[in-house]
Amino acid sequence: VNSTLQDLIKGQVNVIQLRAKELTTREFFDLANDVREYTCSAGCLLIINDRVDVALACRADGVHLGQEDLPLDIARKLMGDALVGISTHDLGQAQEAVSRGADYIGFGPIFATVTKSTGYTPRGIETLHEIRRAVRLPIVAIGGITEHNVAEVWQAGADSAAMISGLLGAEDIETTAKRVSDVYARLAGTRVQ
Amino acid sequence: VNSTLQDLIKGQVNVIQLRAKELTTREFFDLANDVREYTCSAGCLLIINDRVDVALACRADGVHLGQEDLPLDIARKLMGDALVGISTHDLGQAQEAVSRGADYIGFGPIFATVTKSTGYTPRGIETLHEIRRAVRLPIVAIGGITEHNVAEVWQAGADSAAMISGLLGAEDIETTAKRVSDVYARLAGTRVQ
Repeated sequence: VNSTLQDLIKGQVNVIQLRAKELTTREFFDLANDVREYTCSAGCLLIINDRVDVALACRADGVHLGQEDLPLDIARKLMGDALVGISTHDLGQAQEAVSRGADYIGFGPIFATVTKSTGYTPRGIETLHEIRRAVRLPIVAIGGITEHNVAEVWQAGADSAAMISGLLGAEDIETTAKRVSDVYARLAGTRVQ
Repeated sequence: VNSTLQDLIKGQVNVIQLRAKELTTREFFDLANDVREYTCSAGCLLIINDRVDVALACRADGVHLGQEDLPLDIARKLMGDALVGISTHDLGQAQEAVSRGADYIGFGPIFATVTKSTGYTPRGIETLHEIRRAVRLPIVAIGGITEHNVAEVWQAGADSAAMISGLLGAEDIETTAKRVSDVYARLAGTRVQ
């Protein structure tokens, strides 16, 4: 984990989301604490997936909820000033997230992905566009994003792109992350609003 | 669940611990909310296993930790005024629980049990006695306790007896719980200190 994490940070990834469904609570907590040290010193945000308790316990920057996790408004209260984001898959869910106090939304899957079976068909760039027009919150696009299609995603209005296999499956994680960061830097400010 | 829960409550069980390792967070939260309604109106305590977030979210009376869950002192801070208990298996763990601020300890397995493989051999009544002499916190004895051996457990100094198969495996849950409650009422005040 440590070498992957260092590669990501050196590649200028600025948010790490930690997901660990198979660990015990203590293992997840210990891992989150380890990761926290790296992210803190690198000025990178740490978001914990699902587990509000682990997020609070390790003083993460936020928690990311799925539709099967705690209700957003309850997580919002428990998390105090920290970030609360939620995965959304259609306009209705995105608008509900806004009304329930999310700080950002995940939206996807944009493209087909092999990482996680979500049960959702790819939403596509056009739908991302539509969500962008409807929602002012920051949008994190996810699902099948790679260094080759990330420009499209930003141009469609995403504020951030979440990558799992697109980065962790790369031969050289640091260099790939750096290329993605460069695409972002080049496109920043030229996006659809 | 509802009929089992009603049987337990009618049988004068006064603490329910809810454990649900296989559910999603949302399912666990929904279940806990349902159970909470019963326990509240019955004056029965609800303790959530492991998940501090679910316990906070459903305003349970407390959380019960295992040695693989969040560290006790951190859970203690997150839980505010609610109860925090922890499973212990030897004198060292029991004493550590005291020093880290537990409200009560679980201790066991007292007898052999089929419910959950803990990896621990039965501790026996003598060890329970020893823990009682060393620890002033309330002790909840667990592991292989039935209506036939619960008297021994109370006489050895346990404040409470946790039963899973001993109750849920009974033909008539309510009547069995009631008989256990009667044993307790009969022995209360006659225990070893």
